[in-house]
Amino acid sequence: MEGDIAQLGQFVGAGLAAIGSGAAAIGVGHVAGNFLAGALRNPSAAAGQTATLFIGIAFAEALGIFAFLVALLLMFAV
Amino acid sequence: MEGDIAQLGQFVGAGLAAIGSGAAAIGVGHVAGNFLAGALRNPSAAAGQTATLFIGIAFAEALGIFAFLVALLLMFAV
Amino acid sequence: MEGDIAQLGQFVGAGLAAIGSGAAAIGVGHVAGNFLAGALRNPSAAAGQTATLFIGIAFAEALGIFAFLVALLLMFAV
Repeated sequence: MEGDIAQLGQFVGAGLAAIGSGAAAIGVGHVAGNFLAGALRNPSAAAGQTATLFIGIAFAEALGIFAFLVALLLMFAV
Repeated sequence: MEGDIAQLGQFVGAGLAAIGSGAAAIGVGHVAGNFLAGALRNPSAAAGQTATLFIGIAFAEALGIFAFLVALLLMFAV
Repeated sequence: MEGDIAQLGQFVGAGLAAIGSGAAAIGVGHVAGNFLAGALRNPSAAAGQTATLFIGIAFAEALGIFAFLVALLLMFAV
């Protein structure tokens, strides 16, 4: 058995971080899903809430991209 | 016992990253599911929300593709 | 087999912390999603609840950023 045990940690850690990236998509789905449910019930109000839709998506997406960033850092930076 | 322990980490990490890819599908399902629930209640409004449906799917899908990318990088790039 | 086993722990821990970052996005998605669901049902009341939306997003987002911070500290500070 050879190889650097710290590198094992980097690769397993990157895989774990990618779970976080996927989990954030659940949050993004909640935002967009609820917007669609409401917009289809009351289409005339949809245009006024588009900004809120993108704010909600942006905040949830940011956390997923942070997790993806951790994965990239673990693979290529540390 | 022989073999490179860092390679063990690559393979376990790639498997973990694939969990993230699958978790993102929950988010995509929320978006498309809520669209369908609303569109079937109010079919006349569905056409006007198709763009929002694809925006929501795209953002959630992106996070799942990031996780899939981490899995691919772990297997073939690092 | 060579390498520092404490470093293995740092990198695996950073990956685990990134899951927390992604999980916080589920909370952010609940806040923004429910705001949108309500705002589209009663658009005239939406403007009065925008402050609450951002308070909810901020508190949920903060926890995700704490998790991201733990990942960064594990990789670069400890």
